[in-house]
Amino acid sequence: LAAEWVKNLNASGAPVVSIDLPSGLLADAPTPGDAVVRAAYTLSFQQPKIALLMPENSGYCGRVQVLDIGLHQAFANDTPSKYHWVGQAMAKGLYRPRLPFSHKGTYGHAALVVGSDGMMGAAVLAARGCLRSGAGKLTCYVPACGGAILPATVPEAMYQTVGQNSLAAVVLQGAYNSLGIGPGIGPVQGNWLMAVLRQHSGPLVLDADALNCLAAHPSLLSQLPPGTILTPHPKELERLFGPVSNGFLRVEQVLEQAQRLQIYIVLKGHHTFTATPTGQGFFNSTGNAGMATAGSGDVLTGCLTGLLAQGYPPEAACLLGVYLHGRAGDIAAEQLSQEALLAGDIVTGLGQAFKELASGRALGM
Amino acid sequence: LAAEWVKNLNASGAPVVSIDLPSGLLADAPTPGDAVVRAAYTLSFQQPKIALLMPENSGYCGRVQVLDIGLHQAFANDTPSKYHWVGQAMAKGLYRPRLPFSHKGTYGHAALVVGSDGMMGAAVLAARGCLRSGAGKLTCYVPACGGAILPATVPEAMYQTVGQNSLAAVVLQGAYNSLGIGPGIGPVQGNWLMAVLRQHSGPLVLDADALNCLAAHPSLLSQLPPGTILTPHPKELERLFGPVSNGFLRVEQVLEQAQRLQIYIVLKGHHTFTATPTGQGFFNSTGNAGMATAGSGDVLTGCLTGLLAQGYPPEAACLLGVYLHGRAGDIAAEQLSQEALLAGDIVTGLGQAFKELASGRALGM
Amino acid sequence: LAAEWVKNLNASGAPVVSIDLPSGLLADAPTPGDAVVRAAYTLSFQQPKIALLMPENSGYCGRVQVLDIGLHQAFANDTPSKYHWVGQAMAKGLYRPRLPFSHKGTYGHAALVVGSDGMMGAAVLAARGCLRSGAGKLTCYVPACGGAILPATVPEAMYQTVGQNSLAAVVLQGAYNSLGIGPGIGPVQGNWLMAVLRQHSGPLVLDADALNCLAAHPSLLSQLPPGTILTPHPKELERLFGPVSNGFLRVEQVLEQAQRLQIYIVLKGHHTFTATPTGQGFFNSTGNAGMATAGSGDVLTGCLTGLLAQGYPPEAACLLGVYLHGRAGDIAAEQLSQEALLAGDIVTGLGQAFKELASGRALGM
Amino acid sequence: LAAEWVKNLNASGAPVVSIDLPSGLLADAPTPGDAVVRAAYTLSFQQPKIALLMPENSGYCGRVQVLDIGLHQAFANDTPSKYHWVGQAMAKGLYRPRLPFSHKGTYGHAALVVGSDGMMGAAVLAARGCLRSGAGKLTCYVPACGGAILPATVPEAMYQTVGQNSLAAVVLQGAYNSLGIGPGIGPVQGNWLMAVLRQHSGPLVLDADALNCLAAHPSLLSQLPPGTILTPHPKELERLFGPVSNGFLRVEQVLEQAQRLQIYIVLKGHHTFTATPTGQGFFNSTGNAGMATAGSGDVLTGCLTGLLAQGYPPEAACLLGVYLHGRAGDIAAEQLSQEALLAGDIVTGLGQAFKELASGRALGM
Repeated sequence: LAAEWVKNLNASGAPVVSIDLPSGLLADAPTPGDAVVRAAYTLSFQQPKIALLMPENSGYCGRVQVLDIGLHQAFANDTPSKYHWVGQAMAKGLYRPRLPFSHKGTYGHAALVVGSDGMMGAAVLAARGCLRSGAGKLTCYVPACGGAILPATVPEAMYQTVGQNSLAAVVLQGAYNSLGIGPGIGPVQGNWLMAVLRQHSGPLVLDADALNCLAAHPSLLSQLPPGTILTPHPKELERLFGPVSNGFLRVEQVLEQAQRLQIYIVLKGHHTFTATPTGQGFFNSTGNAGMATAGSGDVLTGCLTGLLAQGYPPEAACLLGVYLHGRAGDIAAEQLSQEALLAGDIVTGLGQAFKELASGRALGM
Repeated sequence: LAAEWVKNLNASGAPVVSIDLPSGLLADAPTPGDAVVRAAYTLSFQQPKIALLMPENSGYCGRVQVLDIGLHQAFANDTPSKYHWVGQAMAKGLYRPRLPFSHKGTYGHAALVVGSDGMMGAAVLAARGCLRSGAGKLTCYVPACGGAILPATVPEAMYQTVGQNSLAAVVLQGAYNSLGIGPGIGPVQGNWLMAVLRQHSGPLVLDADALNCLAAHPSLLSQLPPGTILTPHPKELERLFGPVSNGFLRVEQVLEQAQRLQIYIVLKGHHTFTATPTGQGFFNSTGNAGMATAGSGDVLTGCLTGLLAQGYPPEAACLLGVYLHGRAGDIAAEQLSQEALLAGDIVTGLGQAFKELASGRALGM
Repeated sequence: LAAEWVKNLNASGAPVVSIDLPSGLLADAPTPGDAVVRAAYTLSFQQPKIALLMPENSGYCGRVQVLDIGLHQAFANDTPSKYHWVGQAMAKGLYRPRLPFSHKGTYGHAALVVGSDGMMGAAVLAARGCLRSGAGKLTCYVPACGGAILPATVPEAMYQTVGQNSLAAVVLQGAYNSLGIGPGIGPVQGNWLMAVLRQHSGPLVLDADALNCLAAHPSLLSQLPPGTILTPHPKELERLFGPVSNGFLRVEQVLEQAQRLQIYIVLKGHHTFTATPTGQGFFNSTGNAGMATAGSGDVLTGCLTGLLAQGYPPEAACLLGVYLHGRAGDIAAEQLSQEALLAGDIVTGLGQAFKELASGRALGM
Repeated sequence: LAAEWVKNLNASGAPVVSIDLPSGLLADAPTPGDAVVRAAYTLSFQQPKIALLMPENSGYCGRVQVLDIGLHQAFANDTPSKYHWVGQAMAKGLYRPRLPFSHKGTYGHAALVVGSDGMMGAAVLAARGCLRSGAGKLTCYVPACGGAILPATVPEAMYQTVGQNSLAAVVLQGAYNSLGIGPGIGPVQGNWLMAVLRQHSGPLVLDADALNCLAAHPSLLSQLPPGTILTPHPKELERLFGPVSNGFLRVEQVLEQAQRLQIYIVLKGHHTFTATPTGQGFFNSTGNAGMATAGSGDVLTGCLTGLLAQGYPPEAACLLGVYLHGRAGDIAAEQLSQEALLAGDIVTGLGQAFKELASGRALGM
């Protein structure tokens, strides 16, 4: 009877407003059937439910708004859950303001392996994201075609043009505080990446074709240094760990693999999901559909590498980096619209995003 | 007698304000003689008359203002006409806001064949126009000299440097959601364009020297995939379909050819005119004389290709793209003056233009 | 006695305010001696006196302010003088707003011969100045090293890379609406410039090393097409026409040569002075010391070439171009300070400068 | 007893506010032990104490605020001290506004020897810093790889591409008003630098690898032209003059060496310290931790070289340049946050920083 009622409601053509959850949707498990109300708006109470964060439910939920109904925060804090929500309060807690007497060494030396002929712009975007996230210094390893592009577009970055064969040796000499590999590099040789994984022990971010290389050489996964950060989008995740049938299983898969490999996995999407080696999962609260644009992920890799260089532990780097990246995108979309937003505008928004976290802190001489 | 009266009025030197139409002008047909009042201002009622949209009448009409005199909109709606006016209301109706759980694949992969030695800037402008119109990804096919320019100026775009001979094969492998050809490419070989037309079946925009190639090889016209968009200015139109003696005949010619070839023709001008395969004609309401500047058309080609990539049907892409392009130019001119406006400023204005269409819509989490 | 009194006053150390003119200064002739009051401020009445516009008197005048004391404008208008003051009123009178139905052909095709290895930035600045002054299209002739720079920095400009030997032939084929030669070109061969002068009959602007070439080959002066515009700074002027002992003689020299050669001479300085073939002289009212910076003149050459391309007669192009260039520099200095102002900021200010001239005009559809 | 009390206080976890100085700290000498209160905030009276400016005390002082308690300024002025505080008042006193009738020659021709393959961005930053500080003209000497980068990024700068071997001869021919050497040049041959030092007698700034070259060839130190400016950070200082055990000894060392070598030493840090040949020391009041970022020092070298070119004496150039550079960084951090601030943003802030110094001055025609 209820299914029939739902079917009629959905066929009515009237805009439906659901309260807390569209009827028929389970709060924290896959929907058993298709007898679910298709709401135009969902007004949910106090906390976003997991079901509202799953892509496959977006057709049921419409536009979601979470309303504060005055439940006591202590209750939420005392309720054990492996799922967490990264809002402004948590981001403020992770943020560490700069100390007056620091120098550029304080903020570390980051390195990025980025770009290839045809995708050198990814190098530009990742480099900008890294420096605007606060890294003290940055060296970019780029192919020969990049030598004229980096200094003209990101003069604050140093760069070295090296072929892929000699890359591992050169990069590892650098003793960098963090290393990001992937944006725009194109197909990567497995033995090169293996050499890096074997010799580099510091903070590491792998993205894009570095992930595809892992997927092509699964034996490399077990050689990832503990604490390594992977930043796949759903398709890259599938190549790495195989397909799953719904979003609930996907976050379970990410949590399992992060624990098994003792790494961080940042699954990119509308509510980017970070899984930690201890099996905790964090949904991000910021970002918008305008960030569904080429280069957005390159900027994120830069942000994470930049935060790691400054000494943020990987977990804080992931949660803060994803939050700031999303907030910067929201600021850009407010100024430029979602459609016109380019990945470079996310970089521009980082300043304002940091300022929001820093505000309210006393500053002296 | 009236002719004598008009002659004296025009010779008087006094600024003339015409009501509805300058006397002597027919509302929707060419003026039979030259006994027409030369107004400094024309205050027209409710709807712009076709005669006010014709370049050859601009000397008679002066500055035109359309005043709402409260006629019932239903009357206009019920009056059948093949001519339509694309104002903000129609543009808002065509605009589709982004969905929260979308990703960059949702917004398609566009491709542009653009640029040549001496006109590589056209590639930059078209690429920016395409990405700022919301395409999820963009690959540009440019000559060798462009390999250092694209990533330095439009880092969000991917690019491939290929010679014209191997271009068709390479482009067609890409399976793009839309393809734009023309800005800055210089003279094109007919057999290359023929190869593209034969094998590419998706949304297609042809501009500039791609149009001149069609004009030089008229047999190619019949091979245009249905729904192809051509974006000629009046001279390119004349090369394609021959001369006509006035603006009324020109829009008739455009309507006829669009129907015959089952394509869209966007005739660029003060009130850019779009003709559809079903014989409907749309005058655009936005834009200004500051957009009469080099590269303005390259940006438009980018916009249309970008909208097509996102899944807008060709008709919506034409009407919305032309409207947004013009509105972006108006926003730029308000800030910069008409004289100082460059084509790149139109790209910058696209964000504000999209925001106007998106405003008033509820946004959630 | 008066000389003694002046000497004591100047030695007093007190800041002196002079009324109308510092005592001892003649209004329109060189100062006969050095018994002149050194004012910190000069408050002059109604009109700037010629003496206040002479560089050699700046030490006497200090900061000059011209106060309106209510003299009837008709008196000034009726007083014949070969000297004129280009203020906002005159600039507004010269400015021609764009017509709605115009297209990029309406605003002409300009050409610039600019840049050399080591001074390619001058090409960038001149090109930007030209396009931001409203030219419909622009082609730049640059050396081989410029082929990668122009499209990356001024995508709206077309360009051609040619050696100096074949330049004349190539440029003259173009049938441009205006031609500007000089910014950053480095030493020029006399026979090349002669070839251009012999074959080019349209509007022409010569600057920088093109002027030095004329100075090295004085016989070329008589071959300048009537109406040609030269834009020397005082040292370039001296190389062209020999030294003079004061500013009064310098403007006389400029007026004489402009009449003799039937050309326009724009003598750049604090109050840039334009002399016409009919022997009239125009002091410009806009600009500031922040524009005493590298590349400022390159931008001016671009502006003049851009205005000529749009069909402004040479006299209007000179007066309006110099006025707009100075006003743009004033706008830039208000935002950025005089010290930090770069030539590129003058280009940026052109939009606001044009807007001031266009304001108050009715705009329609 | 007091030591015990301090230990307990520090262990209490309560935020401590110290008045004037944290207890246990000496105002102008190294702290004898570690029995010092660790304040979260220090509210100091009237003048910053030397101890508050030492990096090793930052853990004790926390955020420092200097409060005006109304002591008579005459007392401070009459108290002899070799240490000085460069605040806005002193900077305003050093600043010289531009004169209306000046031209670009008035503001000098600066030269920079900057950049290398891998660090060409340093050339871009130094060049921008130099020009935005008001130099009339600038020529940059860069390696071959820089020839395409300078004109595309700093069109106002001229440039010459020369190998290091022929550099000395070429640079010294130029007869520049100031010369800056170091940003991004990479390892320098001692004999090349020696050649420059022997033949160049004008104002000179040495930074980065030029300093490291001096450290590697200490005999060159005695050949520095009197008035030369060195701009080391603490590590470069240590390489030049050996290690010291605390900040008090470091400023003593800098003062001694500046006197001994008759040069200016600008020791970069939170409160950049300038020592003069006459043994005076100046602490700078501006700047923030966001400037602890790659390229910040390159911009400073540009600023100093630019001020020297305009005729500022070396002492004024150092004090004003460091003040403006820091203030520009403060302005940038207010807009962008400290984390997102890049060195290029300091250049952008220079305009506003100059405007603050120039404000309140009467300007005329």
